[in-house]
Amino acid sequence: MIDSNIIDRLRRIAGNENVLAAREDLLAYSYDATNTWKHAPDVVVLPVNVAQVSEILRLASENRVPVTPRGGGTNVSGGSVPIKGGIVLCTTRLDRIIEINRANLHAVVEPGVVLQDFNTALARQGLFFPPDPQSFAGCTMGGVVAENSGGPSCLKYGVTRQYVLGLEVVLADGTVVKLGGLTPKNRTGYELAMLFTGSEGTLGVISRIILRLLPAPKASRTIVAAFDDVATAGETVSSIIAGSVLPSKVEFVDNWTFEKFRGLLPDETLDSSQVILLIQVDGLPETVEAETQLVEATCQQNTPWIKVAVDSTEAERYWQARRAHFSDISSRAHTIVNEDVSVPRDKIAEFIRLSQESARRHDVPISFAGHVGDGNFHPVVLTDNRDREHYQRALMCVDEIIETALSLGGVLSGEHGIGLEKQRFLKKALDPAAINIMKKIKDVLDPLHILNPGKIWEEDSKIPLNPFRVNPSG
Amino acid sequence: MIDSNIIDRLRRIAGNENVLAAREDLLAYSYDATNTWKHAPDVVVLPVNVAQVSEILRLASENRVPVTPRGGGTNVSGGSVPIKGGIVLCTTRLDRIIEINRANLHAVVEPGVVLQDFNTALARQGLFFPPDPQSFAGCTMGGVVAENSGGPSCLKYGVTRQYVLGLEVVLADGTVVKLGGLTPKNRTGYELAMLFTGSEGTLGVISRIILRLLPAPKASRTIVAAFDDVATAGETVSSIIAGSVLPSKVEFVDNWTFEKFRGLLPDETLDSSQVILLIQVDGLPETVEAETQLVEATCQQNTPWIKVAVDSTEAERYWQARRAHFSDISSRAHTIVNEDVSVPRDKIAEFIRLSQESARRHDVPISFAGHVGDGNFHPVVLTDNRDREHYQRALMCVDEIIETALSLGGVLSGEHGIGLEKQRFLKKALDPAAINIMKKIKDVLDPLHILNPGKIWEEDSKIPLNPFRVNPSG
Repeated sequence: MIDSNIIDRLRRIAGNENVLAAREDLLAYSYDATNTWKHAPDVVVLPVNVAQVSEILRLASENRVPVTPRGGGTNVSGGSVPIKGGIVLCTTRLDRIIEINRANLHAVVEPGVVLQDFNTALARQGLFFPPDPQSFAGCTMGGVVAENSGGPSCLKYGVTRQYVLGLEVVLADGTVVKLGGLTPKNRTGYELAMLFTGSEGTLGVISRIILRLLPAPKASRTIVAAFDDVATAGETVSSIIAGSVLPSKVEFVDNWTFEKFRGLLPDETLDSSQVILLIQVDGLPETVEAETQLVEATCQQNTPWIKVAVDSTEAERYWQARRAHFSDISSRAHTIVNEDVSVPRDKIAEFIRLSQESARRHDVPISFAGHVGDGNFHPVVLTDNRDREHYQRALMCVDEIIETALSLGGVLSGEHGIGLEKQRFLKKALDPAAINIMKKIKDVLDPLHILNPGKIWEEDSKIPLNPFRVNPSG
Repeated sequence: MIDSNIIDRLRRIAGNENVLAAREDLLAYSYDATNTWKHAPDVVVLPVNVAQVSEILRLASENRVPVTPRGGGTNVSGGSVPIKGGIVLCTTRLDRIIEINRANLHAVVEPGVVLQDFNTALARQGLFFPPDPQSFAGCTMGGVVAENSGGPSCLKYGVTRQYVLGLEVVLADGTVVKLGGLTPKNRTGYELAMLFTGSEGTLGVISRIILRLLPAPKASRTIVAAFDDVATAGETVSSIIAGSVLPSKVEFVDNWTFEKFRGLLPDETLDSSQVILLIQVDGLPETVEAETQLVEATCQQNTPWIKVAVDSTEAERYWQARRAHFSDISSRAHTIVNEDVSVPRDKIAEFIRLSQESARRHDVPISFAGHVGDGNFHPVVLTDNRDREHYQRALMCVDEIIETALSLGGVLSGEHGIGLEKQRFLKKALDPAAINIMKKIKDVLDPLHILNPGKIWEEDSKIPLNPFRVNPSG
């Protein structure tokens, strides 16, 4: 438990109204969207300007208090759980959209802006920011950058790091650093803004973000196709992309969630198919028409069952059914283990086949959904963590799935990051020399290891585990 | 001068045929495309595999010998000039295209592959790698990554870092590190591949590159428009982009190089105009048709003089005229000073107006060309370095142009990097705290500062200046 004197000083820095220390408040900041790890901080501080962020970090450094940065807390790898206690530095009150510049196609935002609010503001000016994690309604821009967020639209448009032009970051010792700038081309020294992008709050607190924007596509079209088997669906995706059409999204759901498509697609199709692909093309109306026809023609080579949504209302129904996958699966089991591997596109069918074999071998149910155009899958294993034996089998199955992805040239995480969830695989997934460089960079930027301690790698933290531990789940 | 013993050991590592130490060979490796700085190395080694790269660097580390990595030597900031002597590690014999994977849209190449050869190989499979620096016929992929190359096509497609999926890098001590992977989404630890991208050979030697590819556009169209003044041309560019068309290229030439367009465009147009915009749209044929019409309509609001190339042969003539800008300008003066700033798109007209004022004030001729869609300009000041007084005025003008770009929210370099050329501006262009982080990262990765010493920042190098100096220009 940190000294009450620290909490008093935080109140003086950020104001009483921006410091929370009541037990019920601490519980609210003790978990993230994984709901797996729970650990309460000693205090939560919600700074309203960068000067406060700097003072908070200087105070924390001087007293070697752990600081876990967090925004909306929607992350799904344990990254924002304050497992060593100390301070949660929550950026949600740094929530100004400072500039939207239509002529230069850039925006400047604070880290606490909610992604959906940002895109609503952009849409009013005919602009958009493509990354679209499923948590868009609650996640905040600081987390979008710190987690280098993805989503379905990244197939065509790329992930968050492809939109970061510049950052203002507060280092562990309170130093405020400006990185990058306003222009898409910038060759002034090392790509430091990229180093903080995806660093999961372990290298600094992002206090301001400059993002490249795109003009919003004027039109879009959704094509739905059902397939008898996974391999054919995978080949169809490859053929579409090889045919010079880069759809904005190509999403995959398996028959575990076909119920959500009842009423939208014919029963006989749902009953006889294994996979649904949802494909969206976007751009100018003429472009969209041409690309829709090409996608349709390519799908027709592999399945008789294709539907093109007549309008955006119909399209939105299919996308809602797709987005419902996770909640639908979650409702079918007491516990789910949600994975996030990414494999090369030419290994998609093999990956699914091998993963299904693992599930059969361990006798656990498994469902697949994901951003198949990118080879990024979220396999979900259904289990019950009260049944120790079943839960162990589920975890073994997930371990095998990760091994499978790595053996096929894939990666440990496509979108969710390492956080707490994937630490035990890090040494298998990365070159030890690369981990060594990461640790050295950590040492340089946060020599006392006060920032988000215990994340990414299991480290011999210089900060002891907080003896005061609140674990609401017991 | 390094010990002859080191040269012998290099011969044992890389083979006699891959080590050059004759004076005429050293002269050939003493300069880059700036032709401003000349300094011969003591020895040139051209390794043929990564094991040799590693051994060379270990030997250099043990003996604290400077190592300047270089490929085609086409860079234009002095970056590959071995100003401290020692070893030039030339990667041009690491020239294999290891894999082109059409299904996953990735390629694996060695650093010595020439960009044009790479794109020729990709074109055979209907693929392409968008960055297109003007040096494409001679620059090598290691340099493309180490300089984070740009070019006209980056408007639509982004710069090199947006295509780097993974790297193999050899550190100063000889350690070989694998970074990133094969998938476009990869959230496994820090973005270390991004740190080496654009690091100008100061952090490691890139020995293998994994790149994201795109399907080649099936069609393209070139639109040429002439404008009475710079401001109107700039507004036209903004209107095109705001209209949801992202051309693949929007290039700008001023009337200094209009002679190259004689015979291509009507004389009366050339005589009465100040600026030509060359705009290329690409994609599916239907898309290209729609976008061409939109670009034409937007241009028509601002100029009566527009021409759409009827075919690729005609289009190529315009692009040749555009590419001739630099050689044309170079032939008009004994010495030219070529700049490479980038400004926000909404500041383009103001930037050119202020730069022209600087040129008038210092009484030096100036010409502008550039990737205007990105706000990335290459102003060229014409001078004669034998006329000290004129040359001084030219340099003062260039300094003012850089100050102007920075004051408008622009950056010191859009494409060329810092190298030697822009060191004196670095402290003005970057936050001192950012420079501090860069130096610390340099210290971690290259503690003896043997890699490309004397570049990016003027440092108190730990390696003394080589007393053996060959300066062919006297």
